[in-house]
Amino acid sequence: MTDMGTVTAKADASAYGELQALFGDRFSDKRAIREHHGRAETFYPAMLPDAVVFPHSTEEVAAAVRICAANAIPVVPYGVGTSLEGNFLAMRGGLCIDLSRMDRLVRVGQEDLDCTVQAGITRKQLNEELRHTGLFFPIDPGADATIGGMSATRASGTNAVRYGTMRQNVLGLTVVLPDGRVIHTGGRARKSAAGYDLTGLFVGSEGTLGIITEVTLRLYGQPEAISSGVCEFESLRGAVDTVIQTIQFGIPVARIELLDELQIRAVNAYSKTDLAEKPTLFVEFHGTDAGVAEQSTLFGEIAAVHGGGDFKWTTRTEERTALWEARHQAYYANLAMRPGCTAISTDVCVPISALCDCITDTRAAIEESGIFGPIVGHVGDGNFHVVMVFDPHSPDEVARAKALSERIVELALGYGGTCTGEHGIGIGKKHYLVEEHGDAVDVMRAVKRAIDPAGIMNPGKVFDM
Amino acid sequence: MTDMGTVTAKADASAYGELQALFGDRFSDKRAIREHHGRAETFYPAMLPDAVVFPHSTEEVAAAVRICAANAIPVVPYGVGTSLEGNFLAMRGGLCIDLSRMDRLVRVGQEDLDCTVQAGITRKQLNEELRHTGLFFPIDPGADATIGGMSATRASGTNAVRYGTMRQNVLGLTVVLPDGRVIHTGGRARKSAAGYDLTGLFVGSEGTLGIITEVTLRLYGQPEAISSGVCEFESLRGAVDTVIQTIQFGIPVARIELLDELQIRAVNAYSKTDLAEKPTLFVEFHGTDAGVAEQSTLFGEIAAVHGGGDFKWTTRTEERTALWEARHQAYYANLAMRPGCTAISTDVCVPISALCDCITDTRAAIEESGIFGPIVGHVGDGNFHVVMVFDPHSPDEVARAKALSERIVELALGYGGTCTGEHGIGIGKKHYLVEEHGDAVDVMRAVKRAIDPAGIMNPGKVFDM
Repeated sequence: MTDMGTVTAKADASAYGELQALFGDRFSDKRAIREHHGRAETFYPAMLPDAVVFPHSTEEVAAAVRICAANAIPVVPYGVGTSLEGNFLAMRGGLCIDLSRMDRLVRVGQEDLDCTVQAGITRKQLNEELRHTGLFFPIDPGADATIGGMSATRASGTNAVRYGTMRQNVLGLTVVLPDGRVIHTGGRARKSAAGYDLTGLFVGSEGTLGIITEVTLRLYGQPEAISSGVCEFESLRGAVDTVIQTIQFGIPVARIELLDELQIRAVNAYSKTDLAEKPTLFVEFHGTDAGVAEQSTLFGEIAAVHGGGDFKWTTRTEERTALWEARHQAYYANLAMRPGCTAISTDVCVPISALCDCITDTRAAIEESGIFGPIVGHVGDGNFHVVMVFDPHSPDEVARAKALSERIVELALGYGGTCTGEHGIGIGKKHYLVEEHGDAVDVMRAVKRAIDPAGIMNPGKVFDM
Repeated sequence: MTDMGTVTAKADASAYGELQALFGDRFSDKRAIREHHGRAETFYPAMLPDAVVFPHSTEEVAAAVRICAANAIPVVPYGVGTSLEGNFLAMRGGLCIDLSRMDRLVRVGQEDLDCTVQAGITRKQLNEELRHTGLFFPIDPGADATIGGMSATRASGTNAVRYGTMRQNVLGLTVVLPDGRVIHTGGRARKSAAGYDLTGLFVGSEGTLGIITEVTLRLYGQPEAISSGVCEFESLRGAVDTVIQTIQFGIPVARIELLDELQIRAVNAYSKTDLAEKPTLFVEFHGTDAGVAEQSTLFGEIAAVHGGGDFKWTTRTEERTALWEARHQAYYANLAMRPGCTAISTDVCVPISALCDCITDTRAAIEESGIFGPIVGHVGDGNFHVVMVFDPHSPDEVARAKALSERIVELALGYGGTCTGEHGIGIGKKHYLVEEHGDAVDVMRAVKRAIDPAGIMNPGKVFDM
């Protein structure tokens, strides 16, 4: 247990005893389990919870939270641990609520294009279960995260340019409040003007206002046809201008990803591809056969105007899969360039008009830092990542990677962007939240105090109180 | 002034004196001006503010709010008075802040497909000013409302099925808080995971948390081609099933409106059209020439399967305009069926799977009530309105219309819907908000208390404290 007075320690011991009685072998205070829930692949040191429970239902989550509330024990929700900003580290110890066993698809609305899931289902598992329905859930942050975790961090990924982020795709939530009450936000109607948008408030709140236990999601019909292709450009400007014009023309591109020269080099080495080492766009279109053909042709024409190479596109599944597999392996491709190293992804998003300038400045900052850092971006949204690969055992490299990470955020804020497009604030970006939003953070704090007056929900995250 | 003790009255008088000094002839406590700002076309009696100011800037709004805050004077924001649930009525008197003179288009981001406007610009004025840019703002609630008012009520309308509601299209806000501080929420990046979604919290808060003075909006490229058409159906079920399948097929329909038999009769009489008196869909598609042709053809095929008549569509501007003009005149067409009467629109939204049943039950309730009540609906979202036409001088008719309005909400809630799809809660639907959201309303109240502890912002709206 973290250090505390004897009276508190006794109260805590009794509270954990109560939890153990309630959860049986789904309660654990073993070191290995606590370690598993207290380490993230980030700059942050391990911060272990004092115990972990594995509930099966909203009621069990509520019961656990009530015990914690009565004893002022911090509560930290946990999905599958793929978040990138230390969002689930137990900064003040307390109880970790692992939602991974709440992984049921509760209901599918075939006519309504929606479903309700327990928070612990992962996106791949969900799509597996939806396969026979002809529907799918598009949001794809790369990692096979849980829907609850994706909601809590307002995740997005490669196809947000077409389908939106979790903000647009969560229709309703079941939430356990910090006092153990259960509320339902939103609903199954496609839109509503009834009261404050609590769904939107809890999406992206990173567990600081309550625990999301069920999520109602918007689904989409599996597209009749999908086409994909790759196009390299003479210049970064040409690639970005192609993105801008594609969107201005209203082409409903489903994915439009930028990989810089360095990233292409790593991909070629790792995935045995022979792409030209130039700024390159990977694109995908969804629609009817005729629709994707039209979109692909139009895109090729736009690209040609901006110095794009020959744009070849295909609707053949194997070729498409190989293409996106190469893209999805980018992280490992980068790691393979420097065996034994660690990779950490930065995450900023700027107005698309500033994207070319911001990436150019970022490229210069990377070079100055000496860190190996390819750039990949969900550029249709102005969102890009630098995958910094560095030796975790070299204090100098760690320091340079940290400094580079900070520099990239400063650049993005200077261009009117945000310090995080999709990873969230967690522990490390709290000062940037203040820099980005100023007095609005006081309003966030007021909301936090109103909903969680005792401050037990995921303390230390998003902002300091 | 509303009734109050002498001390308060004196303080108020001095506060209004201060406001008068600040705003000069843009301050008024004349009866005619107060009347204009205190009457809505609804069931509600007039509720006048004690004075009205017409600011030109965020700073002036903030100065006015600071004076009100120091004197506990209620503050009610006002755009152009088109809201339908008494949202701007001054239930406790106080100061009305009329934003209609803050009507500038501040900035257009041609490459970013966004713009920033002052809150008092109307949507038609905005689109007029955008015309030469090739961009447009799609949200169309019918009335020529202000963007600030549309944000505050989370408005939508006919093309939300394609473009979303204000929830999806407001990227950021400038808000004057109840203590006069000014905050900026959201930003110009297309997406962000930085902190609580305050933009979403203020959108739909109906002026109860602060005053929206500037709005950053998402814009869209004007479509290359637009096609429209009309299709009548043998049955309501056939029409609704066509809507469901159109959306399941991923056809990106821009508008899909249902008019029932009664509505068609009124439209025919008023607009000299000769549509069959059957459940009818008005549809519109946006895209390339080939795209809208494909969408229209596919829609016609789906409709035919579900008992739809011959679907004729056109891309000719005059024919399209005539069609939508007839749709937009539906309100007046209904009024013309009973000269001298008043029309009030109900507003519910249900899961689309329940739409046919809910409309059928609603139809029965209308007949039982004896009220003339055609149905029109933004059915792609499950949102529909009954335009109740009644004699405001007949207490019996007024009572029956009120009872019918309540009955329709009860039906929608029974089908898992919401008590308001797009008009907001205002004064009249507060009890339904509680019925719909239960304990979640306590969370809304906690948020209200946190942001507006003195309760001066548009008091009496959305929920009772």
